[in-house]
Amino acid sequence: MSDPTKILLSEKDMPRQWYNILADLPNGMRPPLHPGTGKPVTAEDMSAIFPMNLIEQEMSSQRWIDIPEPVLEKLFMYRPSPLVRARNLEKALGTPAKIYYKNEGVSPAGSHKPNTAIPQAYYNKVFGTQRLTTETGAGQWGSALSFACQQFGLECKVYMVRISFDQKPFRKLMMQTWGATCVASPSTETQAGRAALARDPNTPGSLGIAISEAIEDAVRTPHTKYSLGSVLNHVMLHQTVIGLEAQKQMAMVNAYPDIVIGCAGGGSNFCGIALPYVCDKIHGKTVQVIAVEPAACPTMTRAPFVYDFGDTAMTTPLLPMHSLGHSFMPPAVHAGGLRYHGMAPIVSQLLLDKLIEARAYPQLKCYAAAMLWCRTEGFIPAPETSHAIAVAIDEANRAKEEGKEKTILLCWSGHGLMDLKGYDDYLGGRLRDFELPQEEITKALDEIKDYPKP
Amino acid sequence: MSDPTKILLSEKDMPRQWYNILADLPNGMRPPLHPGTGKPVTAEDMSAIFPMNLIEQEMSSQRWIDIPEPVLEKLFMYRPSPLVRARNLEKALGTPAKIYYKNEGVSPAGSHKPNTAIPQAYYNKVFGTQRLTTETGAGQWGSALSFACQQFGLECKVYMVRISFDQKPFRKLMMQTWGATCVASPSTETQAGRAALARDPNTPGSLGIAISEAIEDAVRTPHTKYSLGSVLNHVMLHQTVIGLEAQKQMAMVNAYPDIVIGCAGGGSNFCGIALPYVCDKIHGKTVQVIAVEPAACPTMTRAPFVYDFGDTAMTTPLLPMHSLGHSFMPPAVHAGGLRYHGMAPIVSQLLLDKLIEARAYPQLKCYAAAMLWCRTEGFIPAPETSHAIAVAIDEANRAKEEGKEKTILLCWSGHGLMDLKGYDDYLGGRLRDFELPQEEITKALDEIKDYPKP
Repeated sequence: MSDPTKILLSEKDMPRQWYNILADLPNGMRPPLHPGTGKPVTAEDMSAIFPMNLIEQEMSSQRWIDIPEPVLEKLFMYRPSPLVRARNLEKALGTPAKIYYKNEGVSPAGSHKPNTAIPQAYYNKVFGTQRLTTETGAGQWGSALSFACQQFGLECKVYMVRISFDQKPFRKLMMQTWGATCVASPSTETQAGRAALARDPNTPGSLGIAISEAIEDAVRTPHTKYSLGSVLNHVMLHQTVIGLEAQKQMAMVNAYPDIVIGCAGGGSNFCGIALPYVCDKIHGKTVQVIAVEPAACPTMTRAPFVYDFGDTAMTTPLLPMHSLGHSFMPPAVHAGGLRYHGMAPIVSQLLLDKLIEARAYPQLKCYAAAMLWCRTEGFIPAPETSHAIAVAIDEANRAKEEGKEKTILLCWSGHGLMDLKGYDDYLGGRLRDFELPQEEITKALDEIKDYPKP
Repeated sequence: MSDPTKILLSEKDMPRQWYNILADLPNGMRPPLHPGTGKPVTAEDMSAIFPMNLIEQEMSSQRWIDIPEPVLEKLFMYRPSPLVRARNLEKALGTPAKIYYKNEGVSPAGSHKPNTAIPQAYYNKVFGTQRLTTETGAGQWGSALSFACQQFGLECKVYMVRISFDQKPFRKLMMQTWGATCVASPSTETQAGRAALARDPNTPGSLGIAISEAIEDAVRTPHTKYSLGSVLNHVMLHQTVIGLEAQKQMAMVNAYPDIVIGCAGGGSNFCGIALPYVCDKIHGKTVQVIAVEPAACPTMTRAPFVYDFGDTAMTTPLLPMHSLGHSFMPPAVHAGGLRYHGMAPIVSQLLLDKLIEARAYPQLKCYAAAMLWCRTEGFIPAPETSHAIAVAIDEANRAKEEGKEKTILLCWSGHGLMDLKGYDDYLGGRLRDFELPQEEITKALDEIKDYPKP
């Protein structure tokens, strides 16, 4: 019998440690800076919004970090996730390439996000936090944190970017079903929200604004901390279970990827699949690692590496990252999870170090790829995920042209069952690609030109 | 290490044959009758709406029927499905019972329905059919057939019961994404639909009416057949992969269920999990098998065993089944997939033979059970599935009272991600239970009092 379609890992073979790439980065990382002093932030500086146990993880350079038993138990609710050979897609393309996808849509929230929501809720619980606040773009992160908070008995408040809130009403219901409260951002509940509404009452919102609201809420409310679903080092750390599992699963069928692909908004699912392979690459393996972003929010491909705030209201530390400027307002593409002005410092550093490469894809091309996926592999992908699929299809077609038997691995970050309006708009011919004039980027970057340089 | 939470079966261990309970029924089954002649229907009679290869399966009494290789390949897209130990729920209940659930929500359509949609599309393709019509209640079946038709290159037209069409707009988008056309039923496109609208322009619709529309469309359109997602023998046959897998998976952890539970509308997921266990029971094993239906549509618990039509327009053969009468209009409960006036002849026969038992649960109790499930096991169940969960919880509580270590197995027939409006209504206090006066049942039954008696 030939290789199975689904390569399943048993719970006992699931990784027991997260991989921390900070231990292996050839050129290290710039520290986040305190915006007031211009000096590296201290654990103390971050303690207003994060619990100390997570701050320690954020700053750790220990290569392997144990996954606590209570976290493992919750991860077992849906992990290890299946690695699947996309045979139907291969056939439709007539490619000699083998395409594998890591299906992170199998979690209760429907994406990879619970991989970090669960440990974040757990560490907060241990620390004594009673309530978490957060932002969400497409709703994947807000759903995941709602689910995780309920598992550990924490309250949860989610500020959801307005355009997604309006496009995806069922996401709010999902969070509510898991006991969380979700409001559209900008809201009238915070200073940051009211300021954004004053600037533009019809704003579609942005992740930057929603982060500001969630942080403001956390800082002013007793026993409350803030939780971020992407960008930060500890989030990337938690997501490495994806790639660590994939390595074991590919070894089960004697395969190793020539190309590893993930979509990147803040960078968390990309890092999840990629970091264990980047580790291999640092240690001599040959593997091409590709991060793909929407052309409408081209952080990696058109933005400089700078120090900038993670949020619009300038309440976070200054992070060393590719950024379009914290006031940049991304066009209203359907892939709400990729509408972020910055990019994780780890991803930004890997780009500088040329250990990974970046591409920007327009949304119509991604929806066309998603439709081919639905017709062949059946599972309906999230609009974010469709970016990774589009790159995989391009690479499989290239392999066909070159007559090469490449092995492609992509992170299928989540399903699109809550995102069907985008498909409806696409099929109805109501979607368009967005041109992003250079002036808009220049304008937002102009505001941060006097910030410290990394 | 203790038993894993998820018990995974590899593709090579997946059953290669379906189990046909017709070979083992102690008292056989009454034949379906031609309404004109009152004689058993022939294969020829059914050939206007079904392809001959499926008619042969419908009438077969061969115990084991091979699953064709092209069907297996498509089933591998999501099968074998995981068997999961609901440890968090057990803990929350403080029960000594072990609760296992077979997660059929992992398919692309989100339920067990593709288990029969795939073979039905395959056999139709082989037969030369170019287009399939069907009805759908909650949308699970319509989605599944849309997906399966696309996999085999068939056109698909779905008549969706209006109340579900309105409650679940995203279901329509899902079908559309898989290339199908979906209209609300009653529609103006068929005689049966127009007649139903003339009777009551504001009708919420029913499965009975939608079936009539789909059959009428199939009969009048060239190269078109009709496909049914429940009730018929071949559908129950295809679903037995659920129970056959569960038997293998439970054996992997040395477990055997004391109680097997499935919700039943037409009977397909219930038969899927139950028939292999009923086979064991016929051959001497002790196992309690429970089918649960909504109190608002109490086919098994309040309807007689009669000959009745499967649809409202009286176009099907007369089926020997528990029926509330084909003109019965079930109240608008959220579990749209359970709003059917009849019950599968196989399930009806098993009830007569006392090989299974039936319960009726009101929807508020089922939503309360679903909320406990969401809080503990995380995955949001479909409203239909919540009925099986409610029985499992009651049985686990009974085991606690009695201090017995019972083993409970339930069919988790599908997720509720497309059904969140029901949760919203429940949490908002806008749902109520329906009283069903005996007169309503009596009235519908009066219309069929002169039909042949089984």
